[in-house]
Amino acid sequence: GFAQLDHHRSVRQGFPEVVYCEGKTPEQSAAILSRLGAAGQGPVLGTRANDQVFELVKQSVPDMQYDPLSRTVFLKRGIPSPIGDVAIVCAGTSDLPVAEEAAITAELMGAAVTRVTDVGVAGIHRLFAHLDTLYKARVLVVVAGMEGALVSVVAGLVHQPVIAVPTSVGYGTNFAGVTPLLSMLNTCSSGVGVVNIDNGFGAGYLAGMINRMGISA
Amino acid sequence: GFAQLDHHRSVRQGFPEVVYCEGKTPEQSAAILSRLGAAGQGPVLGTRANDQVFELVKQSVPDMQYDPLSRTVFLKRGIPSPIGDVAIVCAGTSDLPVAEEAAITAELMGAAVTRVTDVGVAGIHRLFAHLDTLYKARVLVVVAGMEGALVSVVAGLVHQPVIAVPTSVGYGTNFAGVTPLLSMLNTCSSGVGVVNIDNGFGAGYLAGMINRMGISA
Amino acid sequence: GFAQLDHHRSVRQGFPEVVYCEGKTPEQSAAILSRLGAAGQGPVLGTRANDQVFELVKQSVPDMQYDPLSRTVFLKRGIPSPIGDVAIVCAGTSDLPVAEEAAITAELMGAAVTRVTDVGVAGIHRLFAHLDTLYKARVLVVVAGMEGALVSVVAGLVHQPVIAVPTSVGYGTNFAGVTPLLSMLNTCSSGVGVVNIDNGFGAGYLAGMINRMGISA
Amino acid sequence: GFAQLDHHRSVRQGFPEVVYCEGKTPEQSAAILSRLGAAGQGPVLGTRANDQVFELVKQSVPDMQYDPLSRTVFLKRGIPSPIGDVAIVCAGTSDLPVAEEAAITAELMGAAVTRVTDVGVAGIHRLFAHLDTLYKARVLVVVAGMEGALVSVVAGLVHQPVIAVPTSVGYGTNFAGVTPLLSMLNTCSSGVGVVNIDNGFGAGYLAGMINRMGISA
Amino acid sequence: GFAQLDHHRSVRQGFPEVVYCEGKTPEQSAAILSRLGAAGQGPVLGTRANDQVFELVKQSVPDMQYDPLSRTVFLKRGIPSPIGDVAIVCAGTSDLPVAEEAAITAELMGAAVTRVTDVGVAGIHRLFAHLDTLYKARVLVVVAGMEGALVSVVAGLVHQPVIAVPTSVGYGTNFAGVTPLLSMLNTCSSGVGVVNIDNGFGAGYLAGMINRMGISA
Amino acid sequence: GFAQLDHHRSVRQGFPEVVYCEGKTPEQSAAILSRLGAAGQGPVLGTRANDQVFELVKQSVPDMQYDPLSRTVFLKRGIPSPIGDVAIVCAGTSDLPVAEEAAITAELMGAAVTRVTDVGVAGIHRLFAHLDTLYKARVLVVVAGMEGALVSVVAGLVHQPVIAVPTSVGYGTNFAGVTPLLSMLNTCSSGVGVVNIDNGFGAGYLAGMINRMGISA
Amino acid sequence: GFAQLDHHRSVRQGFPEVVYCEGKTPEQSAAILSRLGAAGQGPVLGTRANDQVFELVKQSVPDMQYDPLSRTVFLKRGIPSPIGDVAIVCAGTSDLPVAEEAAITAELMGAAVTRVTDVGVAGIHRLFAHLDTLYKARVLVVVAGMEGALVSVVAGLVHQPVIAVPTSVGYGTNFAGVTPLLSMLNTCSSGVGVVNIDNGFGAGYLAGMINRMGISA
Amino acid sequence: GFAQLDHHRSVRQGFPEVVYCEGKTPEQSAAILSRLGAAGQGPVLGTRANDQVFELVKQSVPDMQYDPLSRTVFLKRGIPSPIGDVAIVCAGTSDLPVAEEAAITAELMGAAVTRVTDVGVAGIHRLFAHLDTLYKARVLVVVAGMEGALVSVVAGLVHQPVIAVPTSVGYGTNFAGVTPLLSMLNTCSSGVGVVNIDNGFGAGYLAGMINRMGISA
Ligand SMILES: Nc1ncnc2c1ncn2[C@@H]1O[C@H](COP(=O)(O)O)[C@@H](O)[C@H]1O
Ligand SMILES: Nc1ncnc2c1ncn2[C@@H]1O[C@H](COP(=O)(O)O)[C@@H](O)[C@H]1O
Ligand SMILES: Nc1ncnc2c1ncn2[C@@H]1O[C@H](COP(=O)(O)O)[C@@H](O)[C@H]1O
Ligand SMILES: Nc1ncnc2c1ncn2[C@@H]1O[C@H](COP(=O)(O)O)[C@@H](O)[C@H]1O
Ligand SMILES: [Mg+2]
Ligand SMILES: [Mg+2]
Ligand SMILES: [Mg+2]
Ligand SMILES: [Mg+2]
Ligand SMILES: [Mg+2]
Ligand SMILES: [Mg+2]
Ligand SMILES: [Mg+2]
Ligand SMILES: [Mg+2]
Repeated sequence: GFAQLDHHRSVRQGFPEVVYCEGKTPEQSAAILSRLGAAGQGPVLGTRANDQVFELVKQSVPDMQYDPLSRTVFLKRGIPSPIGDVAIVCAGTSDLPVAEEAAITAELMGAAVTRVTDVGVAGIHRLFAHLDTLYKARVLVVVAGMEGALVSVVAGLVHQPVIAVPTSVGYGTNFAGVTPLLSMLNTCSSGVGVVNIDNGFGAGYLAGMINRMGISA
Repeated sequence: GFAQLDHHRSVRQGFPEVVYCEGKTPEQSAAILSRLGAAGQGPVLGTRANDQVFELVKQSVPDMQYDPLSRTVFLKRGIPSPIGDVAIVCAGTSDLPVAEEAAITAELMGAAVTRVTDVGVAGIHRLFAHLDTLYKARVLVVVAGMEGALVSVVAGLVHQPVIAVPTSVGYGTNFAGVTPLLSMLNTCSSGVGVVNIDNGFGAGYLAGMINRMGISA
Repeated sequence: GFAQLDHHRSVRQGFPEVVYCEGKTPEQSAAILSRLGAAGQGPVLGTRANDQVFELVKQSVPDMQYDPLSRTVFLKRGIPSPIGDVAIVCAGTSDLPVAEEAAITAELMGAAVTRVTDVGVAGIHRLFAHLDTLYKARVLVVVAGMEGALVSVVAGLVHQPVIAVPTSVGYGTNFAGVTPLLSMLNTCSSGVGVVNIDNGFGAGYLAGMINRMGISA
Repeated sequence: GFAQLDHHRSVRQGFPEVVYCEGKTPEQSAAILSRLGAAGQGPVLGTRANDQVFELVKQSVPDMQYDPLSRTVFLKRGIPSPIGDVAIVCAGTSDLPVAEEAAITAELMGAAVTRVTDVGVAGIHRLFAHLDTLYKARVLVVVAGMEGALVSVVAGLVHQPVIAVPTSVGYGTNFAGVTPLLSMLNTCSSGVGVVNIDNGFGAGYLAGMINRMGISA
Repeated sequence: GFAQLDHHRSVRQGFPEVVYCEGKTPEQSAAILSRLGAAGQGPVLGTRANDQVFELVKQSVPDMQYDPLSRTVFLKRGIPSPIGDVAIVCAGTSDLPVAEEAAITAELMGAAVTRVTDVGVAGIHRLFAHLDTLYKARVLVVVAGMEGALVSVVAGLVHQPVIAVPTSVGYGTNFAGVTPLLSMLNTCSSGVGVVNIDNGFGAGYLAGMINRMGISA
Repeated sequence: GFAQLDHHRSVRQGFPEVVYCEGKTPEQSAAILSRLGAAGQGPVLGTRANDQVFELVKQSVPDMQYDPLSRTVFLKRGIPSPIGDVAIVCAGTSDLPVAEEAAITAELMGAAVTRVTDVGVAGIHRLFAHLDTLYKARVLVVVAGMEGALVSVVAGLVHQPVIAVPTSVGYGTNFAGVTPLLSMLNTCSSGVGVVNIDNGFGAGYLAGMINRMGISA
Repeated sequence: GFAQLDHHRSVRQGFPEVVYCEGKTPEQSAAILSRLGAAGQGPVLGTRANDQVFELVKQSVPDMQYDPLSRTVFLKRGIPSPIGDVAIVCAGTSDLPVAEEAAITAELMGAAVTRVTDVGVAGIHRLFAHLDTLYKARVLVVVAGMEGALVSVVAGLVHQPVIAVPTSVGYGTNFAGVTPLLSMLNTCSSGVGVVNIDNGFGAGYLAGMINRMGISA
Repeated sequence: GFAQLDHHRSVRQGFPEVVYCEGKTPEQSAAILSRLGAAGQGPVLGTRANDQVFELVKQSVPDMQYDPLSRTVFLKRGIPSPIGDVAIVCAGTSDLPVAEEAAITAELMGAAVTRVTDVGVAGIHRLFAHLDTLYKARVLVVVAGMEGALVSVVAGLVHQPVIAVPTSVGYGTNFAGVTPLLSMLNTCSSGVGVVNIDNGFGAGYLAGMINRMGISA
């Protein structure tokens, strides 16, 4: 076959291989997802998928779900009841697809997820109305485009790890997310780890890992 | 001579030509500053100067002053008592040289200046302690390096024009001020105009112009 | 709901929240604009909109208008008769959409607006024919693509604040507006504040703020 | 004074403000560090310091220490016996200063630290000899310059969170650390958060936060 | 005609001119390929072709073949039985088109080609399962997108020349292949030559040249 | 009207204003071109046009011509018989549109033009076959994409001015023409002036100016 | 020897090889310059030289001259009386070294040179005072740093070829001359050819070539 | 110790680990080089070294040599008489340090090396005088700064593998070697592999590997 599945991964990393569907034909994506659906006992996840992938994979794995906002295909299988608390904080309406990719990924890793939406710094009182939610999380994912200042503000307020996700929301010198990425890497607040632009999956995965520390492990 | 002074400028723009001393020999800078000191009735300003320039120019214009922090040589001449209120807000100790260049420029343009220092967003309560000062200004200059998030927070709180100055304070992907510049250009708050990296002069000048609107004009 | 409207903004900033319609579904944009139309007494503005957004929002707010050139949806409500004078100066025909976004924004903020079009520096006498218009403005917005030299020429001639807007008009090393942006940030003329590429809204907003200084405030 | 210390930070974040000494005069840095030394009961940390800063601060706080390799000035005060296990994995000898900044920061946050040095992928068997050390850590910090491939290899092998630190070690198209930064942001392995180039402090801080989860909290 | 064919090239370089079909009309590409097909005794190759080019050229050269995966049009003519061993190692399924362009080019140059697929470093044991294949090759082509770490790992394991091909597979800060390109140029392993992003042809050609050294020459 | 035609230009520069049709509606472009056609006695030129512009303008100016390869709309009016000799040298078939834009522009400026095509340095003997043509030109325009090396080779062989035009032909690190642009700006041969990427018009115009020196002037 | 002098160049290009002294030891530079001084009848030129090179070469070629402003070492030999008129127009005092490198190069090529200094667009009336000088030149070299707008203004006023030289004068987003370079490449005025940043030599050489057209040739 | 020597490397790759001395203290570099000198039977190589490193290492390994031009410290030990033919072709005098690093590396790998110097394309006849040398090599290393066009010309003439090394020789838009690097990656000639800027070592190593194919292996 064209793909060498890494079935060993759930042993090595506690989570099976995740399928990145972009750059693959729908047939290739669906075939890999179906094999993962057939092979294991745990969850299955495909990111950057589309309707076509979903229609194909549903034929062999009927329980598979699809979330069009985040473009994720997934199977919630073998997940115990949600533990901990991952807060997903999001600057604007346009950042929702990336935030939701993070949320679904964290949920598949067993996390309880709290969503806080549209709290960009242009009206900072909106964020302050959610301080309690921020304080009680175990780990936070902050998703922002434009200039990404939300990360610095949130990370300056809390004492938990913050995973920062720049999005490609913006125009001109936003450079498709480069500006919030740089902003997040240079934050004057401490306790921030950054992932690639629009990489909701990566943030959700890392947050999911951290969330279960001292609980599951 | 090597320089064609723009003596017409104070008529045209209400402020005489300002000397940018970098890339000129101290002798060239001092000669131009001396001629401006001899020619007019108004203030004189040289930016990015140094001790040497000052020592030379003092010989012919004894009233000339030098501020080593901002590296400005200046003559406070023909300035009526300060009007309006320009607030210069600065994120960290390392941004002070640029902030002070802005402050001195605005003062030479006749403005009353209020300085607010070391209020970066890593500890946002420090900024909130100064809200009254921000609200009573006519125009604000916000100076920040690192990720420059202070601009978005301040501009989201006030209803006056904000002039944003990125500084080259930071390292790695700060890229000598490119990151706060991009952050400021992409701010999700409204009412912000941006100047070049480390251009305290430009910000002070523009703020000085705006500050006197409806007062002097 | 997916969006947390910042109704507090008109108190805080003297102008209600403006909706950035790009990256939102037409339904999302229209819903937010309709709520703003229903809630307040002041003007409403949506930028980077399109026909679809307009058709949807018109159903609940029949007075809403749409300008296809600048892609703005707006409601001229609660605006006293225009005050001051904002001159919008534009280098070429292709820069008109951005210039018009600035003009409409400034008008919604209560400004009288004067438009000067197609006066790029390749034929500088065209600009000189409009000197009187430039001199009588309270604040100028200069919109230019290509190499953006118009900003330096205008700001060298006038004594009022200049808000510079680079546009993405050009090709090759224009880099979608990066060249005029850099040119404007490095202008040898004083009194210039720069906004993001194609950000007519931001320039109109800042100019609108400055325009009312000493009149409305 | 020129600096507004954020004494509230240890309450808010469980760790006092850290002093970034670059861009400050030695006198400024020493003054701030001395005040922090005098004020609290917890640890004190200054990064990017030098001999001069240390000599000055020692005069008022004799217990202060200096590590010239990582250029950190610090006071190990109020730290209970080390908990957990932070593994600091480092690609080459030239990356040691950054790795050590991370190690000292994590130790000041109460972590037990294990150092693994000179295990770059050019000779991958050297890394495999340390697999046991990697597997028993709670969280890993991976420090690498050149092309930064070590992060992908380590994160592909372990199931714990990995904090990746690109260093400016390299030449030509390394672009002072941009290449390993990009490499780490684009890693095909999951569970990686990235910090700024040469930001050992930021990585050590985040690792220290994660390390105490489920132990101290 | 619009094209001056370089018929001399097979004498000078041991391989006829290869047609780069992008940026040419299908008619232009087909006309050049047909002339090469008519003129010589050796192989013919067109890269970045499409169905249309193929349909046109087949009319005059019926033996011409088309591989849609790699978008190559080619004529296997005058090639003796395959010699040596070029291993084409590929990180992920999405890199296959580039890898196959390299494979077909090398085969047209007379090489025996071994393909190793989907062995990215996220699951490094998959690569180790192919070590024998790597060791017995005369020269290796390594094709990878994302962060391109596979090149460093492979080149650290083998003692043969490695030709590295970055692909544009990835998103965000992948910058359409710039990240794996930089990663490969900065590899800490020795014995690596790099070609342009997505340039499977260039890698296959160079590998084909090296492969025949000491055999055909 | 939306456009202020610069009728003064043919007096000032010896050639009327040229219309850049990109970013204008076909109606706007056609209206301007028609006015220029009606107003003057000299040639008319519109670049980056298309069929639609041509169809519209033909209605009012029937003599107008359209060249689809270079996308120029033009009127050959008031041009005396061609003088001098402008050689347009072009690296590959894909560079022809830009080369032809240069050729038509130079012809409208009164130049005799010689075209030399498909002489890229991969087969340098093809260029040497045209040495006589190169030597007898008054000025040369060299058009190349990929790595643009043709400029260095040609300018090293001749003693006339060379106008270099980088094209966006290439892929990957070609960066849409940035690579040949940089190559041409850094040429080790003397006597080269460079224009923007794909700017055949600019090169033809400058070559046309130089060509008539000492003949028409 | 380490260098293969291109003695053939004065035949091929009408001017002998010019020595680029940067990156060579003073001994290497002086040796090459001495050989050129001994060998020919024409002028000799070394750019980016220094005192040391001059002292060494003077020992064997006593007539050699040195201009410390432009850092050129040269021998005015075999040059007939100056012909034509090359105007060198320069924006600010800091651009003088580059302007003078251009002037000396053009003079060595036989040109009469007119210098116009300190006429940047911040005070555009200073340029207009020199219009007669601009109009009577055969070719113009325009030298500018900052935003380089002077090129667009000058080229919009004259009908002769303009050679544009960006300089590295500026700071922040000037990026050591990249901003004026981009500005010049994107000029909305016609008839401009651009050379590398700070390449006064290249501009003077090309201007010298053009200047003698129709006179010497 | 701080370094984990990869003694296994000469088994795995036929050449021992090479020490990159930049970013290490002279003591660290010398200690590693001494251990390699003591441990093996084969050659030893340190790159980017300096006098200090050499003085220290000579104390324990008296046979060690130092070449100040290329800044290499090396021990020619266990090398049989030179085989094959590696041609090192270099554009200008300033590229010699990088070329010599390549030459010494190839020699330590057992290659016979031929050096061709100062044959840049500004005077292409100088290259043609060496065609016989180029044709008889087994593999070529081409070293060039400025615009790097020499690579395209050489690779278009020969039928052997070409390893291209961009150097940081140049100024302005040369961007410290980025321009020749891009030029080489985009060459229109086939059979070229590129290494990092100024990476003479990498090129010599790869050329040394290729040179012995079919001879030693
Ligand atoms: N065209 C525009 N460019 C920049 N900012 C805008 C634009 N239109 C609206 N905004 C601002 O962007 C924010 C809208 O964010 P959102 O919640 O995504 O609608 C508001 O704070 C507006 O003031
Ligand atoms: N090496 C470092 N890299 C990044 N941030 C740092 C570093 N050292 C201290 N900081 C943070 O930078 C801020 C110090 O700002 P300042 O007020 O300029 O000292 C604090 O919030 C620290 O947490
Ligand atoms: N995919 C490719 N990438 C890079 N170079 C290519 C490719 N295909 C063909 N070439 C080379 O590009 C040149 C073709 O140029 P052209 O005359 O435009 O067809 C030839 O020298 C080929 O060796
Ligand atoms: N300042 C300069 N900028 C650009 N090219 C130059 C400069 N000075 C000399 N040159 C050219 O660079 C080449 C000198 O190369 P080299 O053999 O390194 O001395 C010659 O072809 C000169 O025409
Ligand atoms: Mg919102
Ligand atoms: Mg502070
Ligand atoms: Mg126009
Ligand atoms: Mg090592
Ligand atoms: Mg895979
Ligand atoms: Mg061709
Ligand atoms: Mg001046
Ligand atoms: Mg030379």
